[in-house]
Amino acid sequence: MTTQFDQVSVVKQANIYFDGKCVSHTVLFADGSKKTIGVIFPSSLVFNTGAPELMEVNAGKCRIRLQGEENWNEYSAGQQFNVPGNSKFDIETVEMLDYVCHFL
Amino acid sequence: MTTQFDQVSVVKQANIYFDGKCVSHTVLFADGSKKTIGVIFPSSLVFNTGAPELMEVNAGKCRIRLQGEENWNEYSAGQQFNVPGNSKFDIETVEMLDYVCHFL
Repeated sequence: MTTQFDQVSVVKQANIYFDGKCVSHTVLFADGSKKTIGVIFPSSLVFNTGAPELMEVNAGKCRIRLQGEENWNEYSAGQQFNVPGNSKFDIETVEMLDYVCHFL
Repeated sequence: MTTQFDQVSVVKQANIYFDGKCVSHTVLFADGSKKTIGVIFPSSLVFNTGAPELMEVNAGKCRIRLQGEENWNEYSAGQQFNVPGNSKFDIETVEMLDYVCHFL
């Protein structure tokens, strides 16, 4: 995993969700694609998706339950998971999460 | 003020300071210069500087007292302030601050 994105644009102002439990910055790529890089503080939240997402965990630990599933899966540094579009997922952040969200 | 930085590199992993009261991402420029973009949650903190800094406020409100000064000055969206190098400043964040820190 590379530690940085090169030749990109980055939006100066942060995205703040869930009363600050989630803070991210938007990164724009030359091919028109977009990612967000951010953190989630320890919490239990429900995220909705528009586009399908690939969530890459840089640091921390979370438990995830996708919409319609019964089981929770745990992810930590170096792992990733996919979320379908127009869906949602439960996320329990056990240790402060540092992530990259790829919009697919 | 432009809303984004173009043709830059951005470090994926966030910088977390003061137990998460300050969250930023590092932006690297082709000329070798560096800025951080981030947020500060409502709090009273003391920041130390290495290089001199120009702090640009995108949103929110803070009160600042530079080292050796008696007076506090208030800054909000669209305003900026300079901090000398190898110094420190008290910052009281009144409303969640969204900022760009330019290292000079």
